[in-house]
Amino acid sequence: MKAFMDDGFLLNCEAARTLFDECRNEPIFDWHCHLSPKEIYENKTPSGITELWLGGDHYKWRAMRTFGVDEKYVTGNAPDDEKFRAWAATVEQCVGNPLYHWTHLELQRYFGIYEPLTLANADAIREKADALIRGGGYTPRELISRSGVKCVCTTDDAADSLEYHELIKRETSFGTSVLPAFRPDKALNIDVPGYSQWCDSLQAASGIKVDSFEALLDALSSRIDFFASMGCRASDHALTVVTYEDASSDELESIFKAARSGEKLSAIEVAKYRTALMKFFAGKYSGLGWGMEIHIGALRNNNRRLFRSYGPDVGCDSVADGDNAAGLSALLGSLDEEGRLPKTILFDLNPKDNFVLATMAGNFQGGSKGKIQFGPAWWFSDSLEGMRKQLADFSTLSVLGTFIGMTTDSRSFLSYPRHEYFRRILCGFIGDKVENGEYPFDIAVLSRIVRNISYANAAEYFGIV
Amino acid sequence: MKAFMDDGFLLNCEAARTLFDECRNEPIFDWHCHLSPKEIYENKTPSGITELWLGGDHYKWRAMRTFGVDEKYVTGNAPDDEKFRAWAATVEQCVGNPLYHWTHLELQRYFGIYEPLTLANADAIREKADALIRGGGYTPRELISRSGVKCVCTTDDAADSLEYHELIKRETSFGTSVLPAFRPDKALNIDVPGYSQWCDSLQAASGIKVDSFEALLDALSSRIDFFASMGCRASDHALTVVTYEDASSDELESIFKAARSGEKLSAIEVAKYRTALMKFFAGKYSGLGWGMEIHIGALRNNNRRLFRSYGPDVGCDSVADGDNAAGLSALLGSLDEEGRLPKTILFDLNPKDNFVLATMAGNFQGGSKGKIQFGPAWWFSDSLEGMRKQLADFSTLSVLGTFIGMTTDSRSFLSYPRHEYFRRILCGFIGDKVENGEYPFDIAVLSRIVRNISYANAAEYFGIV
Amino acid sequence: MKAFMDDGFLLNCEAARTLFDECRNEPIFDWHCHLSPKEIYENKTPSGITELWLGGDHYKWRAMRTFGVDEKYVTGNAPDDEKFRAWAATVEQCVGNPLYHWTHLELQRYFGIYEPLTLANADAIREKADALIRGGGYTPRELISRSGVKCVCTTDDAADSLEYHELIKRETSFGTSVLPAFRPDKALNIDVPGYSQWCDSLQAASGIKVDSFEALLDALSSRIDFFASMGCRASDHALTVVTYEDASSDELESIFKAARSGEKLSAIEVAKYRTALMKFFAGKYSGLGWGMEIHIGALRNNNRRLFRSYGPDVGCDSVADGDNAAGLSALLGSLDEEGRLPKTILFDLNPKDNFVLATMAGNFQGGSKGKIQFGPAWWFSDSLEGMRKQLADFSTLSVLGTFIGMTTDSRSFLSYPRHEYFRRILCGFIGDKVENGEYPFDIAVLSRIVRNISYANAAEYFGIV
Repeated sequence: MKAFMDDGFLLNCEAARTLFDECRNEPIFDWHCHLSPKEIYENKTPSGITELWLGGDHYKWRAMRTFGVDEKYVTGNAPDDEKFRAWAATVEQCVGNPLYHWTHLELQRYFGIYEPLTLANADAIREKADALIRGGGYTPRELISRSGVKCVCTTDDAADSLEYHELIKRETSFGTSVLPAFRPDKALNIDVPGYSQWCDSLQAASGIKVDSFEALLDALSSRIDFFASMGCRASDHALTVVTYEDASSDELESIFKAARSGEKLSAIEVAKYRTALMKFFAGKYSGLGWGMEIHIGALRNNNRRLFRSYGPDVGCDSVADGDNAAGLSALLGSLDEEGRLPKTILFDLNPKDNFVLATMAGNFQGGSKGKIQFGPAWWFSDSLEGMRKQLADFSTLSVLGTFIGMTTDSRSFLSYPRHEYFRRILCGFIGDKVENGEYPFDIAVLSRIVRNISYANAAEYFGIV
Repeated sequence: MKAFMDDGFLLNCEAARTLFDECRNEPIFDWHCHLSPKEIYENKTPSGITELWLGGDHYKWRAMRTFGVDEKYVTGNAPDDEKFRAWAATVEQCVGNPLYHWTHLELQRYFGIYEPLTLANADAIREKADALIRGGGYTPRELISRSGVKCVCTTDDAADSLEYHELIKRETSFGTSVLPAFRPDKALNIDVPGYSQWCDSLQAASGIKVDSFEALLDALSSRIDFFASMGCRASDHALTVVTYEDASSDELESIFKAARSGEKLSAIEVAKYRTALMKFFAGKYSGLGWGMEIHIGALRNNNRRLFRSYGPDVGCDSVADGDNAAGLSALLGSLDEEGRLPKTILFDLNPKDNFVLATMAGNFQGGSKGKIQFGPAWWFSDSLEGMRKQLADFSTLSVLGTFIGMTTDSRSFLSYPRHEYFRRILCGFIGDKVENGEYPFDIAVLSRIVRNISYANAAEYFGIV
Repeated sequence: MKAFMDDGFLLNCEAARTLFDECRNEPIFDWHCHLSPKEIYENKTPSGITELWLGGDHYKWRAMRTFGVDEKYVTGNAPDDEKFRAWAATVEQCVGNPLYHWTHLELQRYFGIYEPLTLANADAIREKADALIRGGGYTPRELISRSGVKCVCTTDDAADSLEYHELIKRETSFGTSVLPAFRPDKALNIDVPGYSQWCDSLQAASGIKVDSFEALLDALSSRIDFFASMGCRASDHALTVVTYEDASSDELESIFKAARSGEKLSAIEVAKYRTALMKFFAGKYSGLGWGMEIHIGALRNNNRRLFRSYGPDVGCDSVADGDNAAGLSALLGSLDEEGRLPKTILFDLNPKDNFVLATMAGNFQGGSKGKIQFGPAWWFSDSLEGMRKQLADFSTLSVLGTFIGMTTDSRSFLSYPRHEYFRRILCGFIGDKVENGEYPFDIAVLSRIVRNISYANAAEYFGIV
């Protein structure tokens, strides 16, 4: 029996351990996360581990609700010690859930606590962690620095002022690059209440009157240029399902005007608008050498009761179904044909799409290493099982050595050990093949592959070194 | 090489064996099966193992046809010894099929036969088993008692008189509770021939004239109350695909009347009717504290030739596709919003829906432990591979300790070793994680988890102890 | 650590090695491939390994583009040594891709080269292989003979003259049967440009004026009879998605006439035409005892830029999604009902359909062993992972002993070691179950099963010995 989560965690053979030694100290390029630039700038010391863990982590909230914990201990106003105990009681039931490993990697790496968290020792562990936090070293920037992060790409609305990015830039003592990433979901969501108001904020941010589809594109274009001037190298798009519908300029103008004046659009009108906008964005990104991330298949805010009380991102999102192959083929195909296909990263939330996305990527390769990526395991797939499946599908359907690797995709400053988790899984995945005679134990080649996937491929892909 | 199906079957490490010892003797709560209350009441001694195995098991029939066996030996009138040999010839080809393990678990546990069944020893094994059956101990109730079953929930039509349930209740010598479960598929299937006649039988059973949609609900309501008075704690619904369509009372009345007078309905009318009825049912169940089972994704009676000859449930059903996320979100979401969402168990027949269902459950948790369940592996997934996948997906996407565990889902009184099979797989699943350093060897916590999943979670969930 | 791809490759226990010894020398029945009858007839010595490997293999082209290799080294006119180096640089990055194993199986079996191919030794390996090729033994027929192939079924258009098949037949020195397989995709693709011209070539080939739907069927019927006279035993159909729409003769006539005169058809008209034609084909095949292959779920020629430059089959195809259960049920069900369902092999390209297809097959069994097959892992699933998953799903959902096994499905005369690869995976799959106590170590039964799956089941299925 192996010891619990010790140095050999997930490394079950010599080859795996050797490879992990090759890449474990590579820096982190966190090209997709949800860290708050404001929090990075303000750099406050957290009140304790309860705030760090339960202040905003909807993964944990969701697990607690599943265990039957009352909302008072989840998002409510119960005291910290009670909340922490409720979490401890929950996590010990989470055999096989990534929360279990994340929790213990965080305890080990940031607090030196190697004891498994249970309800029985919850108070002791909380007190120990809180004492350490009071002792210093746990502000956002300290946590980022301690984690070996070279570059962080946050997620920013297209109308965002990027004021905190500006402020962070001036903090010369902070050695990590913090860059914005362009996420114009609100521009795409013409069918969501608040669209027209958002156009107003875009107008304010860009100084361009957004009174036509053409003007919208101008305003967005100026925002993209602004983001670029702030160091942006990546964009991000959430699409529940990918559809493709061509439309004339006239149609787009009239769709836009209808939405601006509060009229309800048909599904096909929405699809036409979204197609045109995605193509516009892609063309811009292509010119700037940005990577375009497309996150497919999230069904959000399913629980309207909790949405009304707490808003989005509170643990009530799930996995969509629907067909994506034809829409993606048309979108990427038309961009490729017009010479405007940017580097693109395709993420699916539903693993039934793995084969569709991983093979779709292969249709449009060329020009640079791994131009179109089947993205890393994401959200509900960001788990031991999910990462292994993503690696298996990527390696079977593509060229593993071109993979740009893992993202943190987190709101928490404690989440960086997820990169270690991924690297262990990666080295275990490759190591097992070597152990089993399926790939030679060629350390020179394999070391380069695992180091590239850990860091260098992403740095090269996004053009940051 | 491990011995064939010995005491360590599927338990490949010390932790797995230790955990199985903790839960192997837990009682069985069989909260979903297709046992016949009539057969339980009549309690006849079977004519032999051929009747027990081939008298009604459409899984075996299907395998035999696949092997090319003539229908005469499947559902036909060939003599028992010939049928049994045909089955033996088939089963030895079934490497990796659950039928192989079920067959041998049943031979071992009920007949003390540890020899693998092959065509070569078919006669000898049949004769030995038949002699044991003649010696007694193989009536339905004896088999249930020998299997350690505390409670059985059968599956009963909404118009059923439950007369055999009534009779069984009076059999004070039988220590197992036999409860009805409410399965109103015929009420939902407004688009299936026979709907109107079924309304007539509902009318007869309820004493309420079913001449309007409102009256239909009254009649169903009275049936639900009757089922509740008979100890019912669970309902069950088969939906090929989950759609959601709101409708007004007037629309529902006119849809109902059209169906009652034999008119053909459009797909959207059917969806409106079904949505309204599901919401009505769910509200009732919520008030009574019942668990609502939804079985999604079966495409039934595909073979019209065999359907005409033998009716339903003869081995000609298969797995549907189609999208379920949006429909489920709307259905559960609206019930949650109205405070009428009952405990719900979501089963999928197509594993491509695992992520959709398991994450959908997570959207609506709260109030009790594991209120919304991603249901156990079912029918075509009720296999070594399928159960492992269900456990992997459940544990990754939910809180494993809340799982209410396995059902028998069988028509056969010999199927109870499927619970042992599941427990071995469960303990192997968790044990491997412990062996591999992914979870600590904390026997106190893990013993409680495996015992809860084996029995106590289900008993608590359905409110029966 | 096991040695790299030695004799125990993929055989991790005694039972696996024993079973592989039982079947490794079985002949090959290659019932589905894309070998060129013309090339088999002409039997030319290749110019070198670069031509053999990179002259037409779109799997390799795709991988090279993914690695960022310029098109000049892919399909362009770079010199052989540079192309070969580009491939070597690519393949060493392909950890976990079947190309890696195919490459080394081919080097080992046809060239006696056991060294792993890397960029570093690319020149040396190329020179060694080219010298061997110059020494003789590498013509198409020599490669086929060396590989132990008893029978090859090529893939031939319905209007093909089969002239090379005729010529090969006369080559009495060649011990392998080379048979045509009937692939009338162009007859089915009424919505694809070129349909009407293809009808003209059908007219020329059949001598029947194709001026009505009825005449089309007559012409196709005569082609099927001609193929049968040439020894054909199999047909093949590519369907992106399976739909089913009944139509009257009049409708079919008017759809056909519209297409013949260049009018655009609606989706439903296309579906009606295709349904009628598939049913016609199936009825014919049933009468002749042919096997009907249906390949579902390929989305082809996604990259219009490369399609314009290089045509189809250049590495720009991917996996479709969409629902197939209802369409397949209706198609197979109506054929079964009319007594015209032939032996049928259902292939899916998207593994999310595995459960749909494998269980659909089970609905219509009977009359012969494994009449309806869940086909072997294909194209993007033709990998270690994909074959294991196909075997797992086949064995769980059907009777493994009835499986007709693997095809080469290749354009290359070097691809026959894929059968060895499959047999190793098969024996590993079964062997692990034996090792683990899940099936007894009954060599008599298991040897027959692995030998049947390797060769005899397919020979019996297609009626060729």
